[in-house]
Amino acid sequence: MKADYDVIVVGCGPAGLSAGLYAGRARLKTLLLGNESAGGPVRGYKLVENYPGFPDGISGSKLSLEMMKQVMKYGLEFKLAEVERIELKEDYKLIKAKIIRGDEVTYLTKVVIIAGGAQPKKLGLSGEDKFIGKGVSYCGVCDAPQFTERVVAIVGGGNAAVSEALHLSKFASRVILIHRRNQLRATRILQEKASAERKIEFIWNTVVEEIKGKDSVEKIELRHVTTRQKSTLNVGGILIRIGLKPRTSYLKGILSLDSEGQVLVNEKMETSVPGIFAAGDIRHGSAKQIATAVGDGVTAALSAENLITLKY
Amino acid sequence: MKADYDVIVVGCGPAGLSAGLYAGRARLKTLLLGNESAGGPVRGYKLVENYPGFPDGISGSKLSLEMMKQVMKYGLEFKLAEVERIELKEDYKLIKAKIIRGDEVTYLTKVVIIAGGAQPKKLGLSGEDKFIGKGVSYCGVCDAPQFTERVVAIVGGGNAAVSEALHLSKFASRVILIHRRNQLRATRILQEKASAERKIEFIWNTVVEEIKGKDSVEKIELRHVTTRQKSTLNVGGILIRIGLKPRTSYLKGILSLDSEGQVLVNEKMETSVPGIFAAGDIRHGSAKQIATAVGDGVTAALSAENLITLKY
Repeated sequence: MKADYDVIVVGCGPAGLSAGLYAGRARLKTLLLGNESAGGPVRGYKLVENYPGFPDGISGSKLSLEMMKQVMKYGLEFKLAEVERIELKEDYKLIKAKIIRGDEVTYLTKVVIIAGGAQPKKLGLSGEDKFIGKGVSYCGVCDAPQFTERVVAIVGGGNAAVSEALHLSKFASRVILIHRRNQLRATRILQEKASAERKIEFIWNTVVEEIKGKDSVEKIELRHVTTRQKSTLNVGGILIRIGLKPRTSYLKGILSLDSEGQVLVNEKMETSVPGIFAAGDIRHGSAKQIATAVGDGVTAALSAENLITLKY
Repeated sequence: MKADYDVIVVGCGPAGLSAGLYAGRARLKTLLLGNESAGGPVRGYKLVENYPGFPDGISGSKLSLEMMKQVMKYGLEFKLAEVERIELKEDYKLIKAKIIRGDEVTYLTKVVIIAGGAQPKKLGLSGEDKFIGKGVSYCGVCDAPQFTERVVAIVGGGNAAVSEALHLSKFASRVILIHRRNQLRATRILQEKASAERKIEFIWNTVVEEIKGKDSVEKIELRHVTTRQKSTLNVGGILIRIGLKPRTSYLKGILSLDSEGQVLVNEKMETSVPGIFAAGDIRHGSAKQIATAVGDGVTAALSAENLITLKY
């Protein structure tokens, strides 16, 4: 049996591209499989201000393009494909994927690096997609400065939503946390801190039904879940923190995932299966930032290189 | 008791600057303490080709400067100082430092992020210290011009040693890489490049025993590790790249270190002491790359923000 590749990287956001960069520089025969153009969701970010090295910020599309150009200097292959299955074949891994608008393919590889990211769950509302980057945000830590002196709504009730409410309260003029239940899921101390912060208000038992505006978010339409009463809130932004969904359904039964479907790894980015590594937002414990995804990708590729050197 | 700062970051290389960036963006009152100008050793790197986002590479001095500029946008304080001690004071940490060419100072802080990097290891040979700056070097990129048209020996076999051999080959008349094993540890692409460079020669299974000269390095005494045979090599300089030593002597007895003095952390970059985090080359298990240091710094700062939110 002979492998088609040394390394197959699944995903082409910052983690996947960084893994590809180091794999390429190590002269490993590497294939990047992405189910969307290079960069992943980062491509959609208007201005990335928190990736070290760009003091004036850089657009997500430019950053993605720069990372892709850098990777491609080392002669990697790239295919638009959706990975459907991984099978363990003796010392190798068999990847089954569907090329986007094309055929089913299978590749035999020595090592797999899973870097498929995690997508923010959307509300699925009218106006939501249209205003992404124009008031609709899925990452408060990333976008907080854009909300300076504005009224911001946050949808959610877990730790992420409440932490980000506290974070945004240092920027926004008012932070209005909208939750569909009558109490938060967030850990008690975060609840207490949020309640004590005068800038943070709560609207309970309420859901957002529509996001409206002309060029950017101007107001949101709300509905009380028991009385069904409608109301309107004028806001300069809405942060949606109702969870992240990792793309790991095809990994169930193959390697260890946590209860949210995130891949469990050690500090070398090794999963429970030798020869399969994970990096970036898809892994348990990730801080889910571009910088941390990049660090993970590099660590995973160096671990992969080491394994290949030792084993094959 | 009232803290002077929310966060004190010790070190201002990529890990420290990235931690500072996120701490600043979280509106935490933050002080960066560095014992050299911003960037740390990265400043001396002629061309950084493996930090994602710069397809044509970027000089280490420019990358450091860009990172520093980005951090400074968030109003952090920066002081040139050598940290001498950390004491635990109830819920706070007391930092004792010596300002470079200045007074002793003490600061009370809620959180400390240790990002002091790692220093080159010495061979510990007769003549080594005496000839530092007179032919003995630990940074080829910094000192390369001194070796123009000279014969230079390099000790080591890892990525750093081989990268610097390639760099020095543009300056020196001959570059002789001396390694105590019979093959290099460096990544394949570097090995190939070094083998293809006619100015680079290799001496295997050999150690340096003495560095000799009058006013500067003139020759080195070698010994073959198996035959024990001695030999002498006339050189104009010797570059020592045998590893890195973390700056953690002031942390002994305060928090858990590994046998090499590197700080032990978990995936949140928490050390064994609550409120003290570590990031970058100084921590156990770091891949010692700019990208991984940056990821660590971000993770540490987010963990620090979380702790401060919950505890204070």
